Amino acid sequence: MTQFVCDSNRIAGVNFSIHPKRDDFVEIITGALEKVDTSKVWIETDDVSTLVRGRIPHIFDVTKAIYLHAANTGAHVAFEATYSVGCPGDTSGEVYMAEDDIVLNKEKVDDISQQAATKFALYPLGGGDYMDQIYAQIEAMKDRGVEVSPTHYATRLDGEATKIFNGLEQVFIDMEESGSSHTVMTVSMSANSPSTKK
Amino acid sequence: MTQFVCDSNRIAGVNFSIHPKRDDFVEIITGALEKVDTSKVWIETDDVSTLVRGRIPHIFDVTKAIYLHAANTGAHVAFEATYSVGCPGDTSGEVYMAEDDIVLNKEKVDDISQQAATKFALYPLGGGDYMDQIYAQIEAMKDRGVEVSPTHYATRLDGEATKIFNGLEQVFIDMEESGSSHTVMTVSMSANSPSTKK
Repeated sequence: MTQFVCDSNRIAGVNFSIHPKRDDFVEIITGALEKVDTSKVWIETDDVSTLVRGRIPHIFDVTKAIYLHAANTGAHVAFEATYSVGCPGDTSGEVYMAEDDIVLNKEKVDDISQQAATKFALYPLGGGDYMDQIYAQIEAMKDRGVEVSPTHYATRLDGEATKIFNGLEQVFIDMEESGSSHTVMTVSMSANSPSTKK
Repeated sequence: MTQFVCDSNRIAGVNFSIHPKRDDFVEIITGALEKVDTSKVWIETDDVSTLVRGRIPHIFDVTKAIYLHAANTGAHVAFEATYSVGCPGDTSGEVYMAEDDIVLNKEKVDDISQQAATKFALYPLGGGDYMDQIYAQIEAMKDRGVEVSPTHYATRLDGEATKIFNGLEQVFIDMEESGSSHTVMTVSMSANSPSTKK
């Protein structure tokens, strides 16, 4: 078997799903995808999830835009994602590493105001003082315009979805710049939930 | 701020969500929860996810049962979970570590036949030969009656949901027995999807 567990050198990627809790979930997902410019990333969807690979700014730009377009329908939409960078493995999408840093969807989505509740967890693999790295990134989130609170196995973020995505992207960039050899981050985000926050 | 990122010594836990893609998602979720005996675990739900903490057999028994009861409605249901054990931190649910190994939901759900497509990823934190540990667990899954195939950032499992959950529980037990200090496993499972497998 090809050992295809993670990504090639420094290409970043995300394995994610959008879950609209509505009968017309297909229309919401395809409608959101049609509004997003994915020309600077490698993208593939199957029956479980969607994979996006490329440079860090573009994988966050694309996932943020898909989520905001889906949530902007007013549906209760959950976003579940695992972002990853730095593990040796496959090479699909390597060509997209030549793209520049100009993101393609920011202008179209940054004016969408959408409150979101998020839980994120950071997993610096490959050893070292990984708990210290996690705590430092949680502290840094407090300066990014979102409400930060503790929960089990994760950190909770509440606020504007655009600010939350921008903050999570910065966590990822900081981990790369700190020299972490392999970083994984999970994100669960919910918009328009009928449940009230506890 | 309380640094509440992960679990206390050897208590296991899971942070998960069930996402039925239907207008009646609330009824599907609450209906599934009502059918599950959660008396041997600590459980708490908020607007983003549900937390279950306790001994390994019970956290898998409870999540498997909730998923199978929800999927058994025929709805397209996604299950997104992060299982975790071994990180220093909070203590909620410690009292449940005194429970025995007799699982409470197995008899009621093991006769539910439900095909599921799953992607799982294993993150042994705290260093060591973590890629070797991951590859060994992927190999071991092949003997557990499910179809195993590679995908980006994860390993795909196809087959009966009961066998998939039992296999994932065994991965977790094996990691504990191997002495891994802190193990995290993410699981994305989909049932009754209108999309065909690629």
